[in-house]
Amino acid sequence: MTKIILVDMDRALADFDKKVTDIYRAKFPDRPYVNLQDKDTFYLTDQYPQEYKSDIKAISTAPGFFRSLEPIEGGLEALTEMESLGHKVFICTSPLGAYQNCVAEKFEWIDKHIGKGWIKKIIITGDKTIVTGDYLIDDRPEIEGVESTPAWKHILYDQPYNHNVNKRRLTWTNYKEILNLQF
Amino acid sequence: MTKIILVDMDRALADFDKKVTDIYRAKFPDRPYVNLQDKDTFYLTDQYPQEYKSDIKAISTAPGFFRSLEPIEGGLEALTEMESLGHKVFICTSPLGAYQNCVAEKFEWIDKHIGKGWIKKIIITGDKTIVTGDYLIDDRPEIEGVESTPAWKHILYDQPYNHNVNKRRLTWTNYKEILNLQF
Repeated sequence: MTKIILVDMDRALADFDKKVTDIYRAKFPDRPYVNLQDKDTFYLTDQYPQEYKSDIKAISTAPGFFRSLEPIEGGLEALTEMESLGHKVFICTSPLGAYQNCVAEKFEWIDKHIGKGWIKKIIITGDKTIVTGDYLIDDRPEIEGVESTPAWKHILYDQPYNHNVNKRRLTWTNYKEILNLQF
Repeated sequence: MTKIILVDMDRALADFDKKVTDIYRAKFPDRPYVNLQDKDTFYLTDQYPQEYKSDIKAISTAPGFFRSLEPIEGGLEALTEMESLGHKVFICTSPLGAYQNCVAEKFEWIDKHIGKGWIKKIIITGDKTIVTGDYLIDDRPEIEGVESTPAWKHILYDQPYNHNVNKRRLTWTNYKEILNLQF
């Protein structure tokens, strides 16, 4: 049966935290940094001391940051495979409050890495609860918004900081089993 | 009762067709142009002869075009009034295929004309049928997508080219009556 599958972008398809960390280490080689395996909060800034938070934020809001993110292994292939199985796949992503570079570069990233045809499958929204679907694959532990009972079932994209959350989780190696997709 | 109200942007809040026409007339003063009261198709390009279509498209995809659109009278006030009545209002807009300038400038436009707080109420989506709401206010005669029975009721934003469509329509002077909002 055809499913509507919503897939988050940052930290599920695009490796946001790795790029921030790489740039931070290159800019500030003498400072301590957070090993991403040890990250235990959703926001990376929450892991850094107050005096370094603005440096972390400046990295992700700079021109070119979103464009430069590396794809998370297997994610893009999973999108096209789910589509080829007949499911309806959308990329469902929230913008930074500092939207100036991020929204256009999210489009560019999808265009570059998956192709022009996926542009119309991007949903940029600050509130994911009012988007309809069977599944929302998202690393964020809690997804909140105006709709208290969203249509989708939230499946966690597996990340170290969501291991304590009691929800089903997946990776791009086991997603077909976890979602019970026909293939 | 609280409603979720989705409001289209181009030609409902932002006067896309007027700006295209103004720029076209200024650039090509000797050519005939379409008086917008006589426009009877959704796309303005469909009203122009083949040899002028690319000039029309070039106007709306140029940097600065979306940023420069004039608000349609009463629209922005209607958004804030519906919110103040307790309803949940979102701006639900599809990007041009040529997304390079339009997505960031749509955000800028909302930020500039309604305010920073509305940034998180923007939904950019190529498919509006999978967004949930009570109403979708949109000038486009037919709204199609993967969901054949969207959650919302489509209310036409009144424009000359949708007068032949048998759906309820509204303007920013009669929207409260048409939507039957408490006030």
